[in-house]
This record gives sequence, structure tokens and C-alpha cells, in this order.
Amino acid sequence: MARQERAVRTRNALIESAAELFDRDGFEVASLTTISARAGVSNGALHFHFSNKAALADAVWEAAAQRLRRITARRTAHPLQCLIDATHALCRGLGNDAVLRAGFELCHAQQKTRGDETLRESWQRWVEDVLAQADAEGALVPDVTARDAAATVVAATMGFETLSGQDNRWLSHHTVTRFWTLLLPRLAEESIRETLVVGGSQPTGADEHRYPGSTKD
Amino acid sequence: MARQERAVRTRNALIESAAELFDRDGFEVASLTTISARAGVSNGALHFHFSNKAALADAVWEAAAQRLRRITARRTAHPLQCLIDATHALCRGLGNDAVLRAGFELCHAQQKTRGDETLRESWQRWVEDVLAQADAEGALVPDVTARDAAATVVAATMGFETLSGQDNRWLSHHTVTRFWTLLLPRLAEESIRETLVVGGSQPTGADEHRYPGSTKD
Repeated sequence: MARQERAVRTRNALIESAAELFDRDGFEVASLTTISARAGVSNGALHFHFSNKAALADAVWEAAAQRLRRITARRTAHPLQCLIDATHALCRGLGNDAVLRAGFELCHAQQKTRGDETLRESWQRWVEDVLAQADAEGALVPDVTARDAAATVVAATMGFETLSGQDNRWLSHHTVTRFWTLLLPRLAEESIRETLVVGGSQPTGADEHRYPGSTKD
Repeated sequence: MARQERAVRTRNALIESAAELFDRDGFEVASLTTISARAGVSNGALHFHFSNKAALADAVWEAAAQRLRRITARRTAHPLQCLIDATHALCRGLGNDAVLRAGFELCHAQQKTRGDETLRESWQRWVEDVLAQADAEGALVPDVTARDAAATVVAATMGFETLSGQDNRWLSHHTVTRFWTLLLPRLAEESIRETLVVGGSQPTGADEHRYPGSTKD
């Protein structure tokens, strides 16, 4: 393995390890020694890549932001189907990807002071955009505003994340599907609603995975 | 002031101070010295009331559980109006009451290990009960289940709390009112819906406060 490739692998292992420990113990409590040990690298190697814990947190956040962009970049036919699919992908990611989860958790402590957009804010902005697009296409029920719909979708998804700290079924495909079964008749015009799949549309991209037990319920 | 009364006041001041610092700095980081200083009492007085930080966290949690019980004990005419009113009272409390907020935040770290019900679980159980009661009275739209409705209400309210860490407007009367404006037509039978006030019903009990700017919007 070339030296550069090894360096990239070490850096990624440190990011994964930091995310797991930030998530488990919190940013303040997680120590650099534990992070390097979990990644299987020396303290010296950690300091070669990251000068301090804040730099490591920035790298976790940047990696998580990239994963969120990948989730929201997936475009299917209809903006409302995009939204449904993205909520499924986000909840699946928050359930099984420590980096994405830590990126959302770090929102509070890290990015706020620098004035960067937090991942929660990025998610909110994307949900508002996609619902505004659905509204412009006449896909929303007339007395529903894109803004109100976005607030409910953002709050519910962030609530699933918060509640999953105690019970990970809150992030399950079933929970997200039932949420859309409840909400969609209130949001989507009847003619469009019939074309939408509350359990998520079929995967198309190479980086997509079939949902476990993805029969509609 | 009698000695006993003074002791109760000191204990309450310590609980308030601990809640504020757990909320601001996290349970792990908050120190007993800072907590006693903020409460304006000596370290000795703190140790007279609480043997360690975990005992203080238990007291915060118990005080918060009592406040949550007060919020969910308010009974108005209809179960759905009870639910609407309780979501308003909860969000108002999470916005301006450090003890209630810390009680919900402590869920994760403290109660889990002891097997106690967390405040999030208590809230969920109450929301499920009140929606089951609404369902039994024929107040829900036929294809909506109490369970799905409860999951959405619990997730959205916990999401408001999470998101308010960055922007406290997520806990505002306006946000909760808009949430019910969106959701209620999907939940409540039409004949009942017209009797419900999405901004919360008029206060009746002595411990209730008028919502600021509670005109319907």
C-alpha cells in the first residue's frame, strides 16, 4: 500500500473512531488517547493528522456534511418522493453511521461558535427547498404551506434521532413509513399522492441499499 | 425564616442551579463547586443535601418529573384539546424552565442505567393514552391509528426541544400552533375538529398562564 493511501486510511480510521466516541461519551469527555487507541494508531499518528480535538471534530463534521449532501443529492421523479426517500436514507444513516450521527450531535457545540451552518440547519434548508418546489408544482394541498410542512418534517426527523438514543426503533424503516402514511394525505394533492411510495422508491444509484423488509406496510 | 424552610429553599436553589449547569455544560462537565457557587451556597451545604452529583441529578429528574405530571394532569373537555394544551405547556416549559429541560436531557445518561422511566418515555406513554382515549370516543379520522398519531406528536415535540438548542423559536407558541394547524385536520374527525383550539384553550386552573400573544394564527 502506497504511503499516501495509508495516510488516507489512518485519517479516516481516526474520524470514524472520534465519531464513535463523541457519540458515546460526548465531545468533552472523549479523550484523544482513547480515540487513537480505538483507531489502532499511535498518539503521534493522531497528532500528525489533527492538531487537537477541535480539529478532529471539524473533520468529523465535514465528513458528515458530505454524507448528508449525498443523501439529499439523490433525485427521483417527484420532489415529494425525493423528500420521502431522503428521510428514509437520513434515518437509516443516523442509525448505522456513527459519523453522520456525530455530525448532527456536534451541531450544538462546535459549528455554532464559528457561524458555520450546522447539519440540522442544512437539513432544514433542504427540506424547505424541496417542499417549496413541490408547492410550486401544485403538489401540495391548497391550505398547507411548504414552511409548515417543512417544520413538521424537520422536527419529526430530529425527534426520531433524539428518541433513538433510548430506543433505536425510532429510526427504523417502519417508523418512517408510518410517519409518511400519517402525514402524506395531509400534504400531497390526491392525484400525486397515489404515485408516491411511503416506504421509499426503488433504489437506483450504485451507493443505495435496499431497505431491510421494504414491503409496504 | 424557620430552619426547615431555609433548608427547603437551599435544596431548591441547588436543584435549579444544577439543572442550569447540566443543561449548559452537560452532566459530565458541570462541577459541584460551580453548582454550589451559582446557587449562592457553600460546598458544605451542597454536601449536606446531596452526597454526590448523581444524587443531585436524581433530584433534578424528580423535580422535572413532577412538573411534567402537572402539565399532563390538566384536564380540559376533550382528550384532543388536552393533548394540544399539553404540547403548548410542555414546549413553553422546555423553553423557560431549566429543571424541566434538564430532566428531559438527563434521560439518556441517568435513568437508563437504573431502569426508571425517562421523561421522554413518560411523555410518550401519556400521549399514547390520551390519543387512545380520543380514538375510543370516535374522535380520530377512521384510517388514523392512535399509535401512529402518538409517534408523530412525540417525535415532533422532542424534535422541537432538540432544535431549540440552536434557535429557541422552535419552542414558541407560534411553532406549536402551526404544527397543530397542519396535523389536526389529518387526526380529528371534522365535527370535533371545529371545537378544538390549535393555539391552546383558555386557561382555567390557578397554575396556568395565558400564552403570550395567544390570538389564533
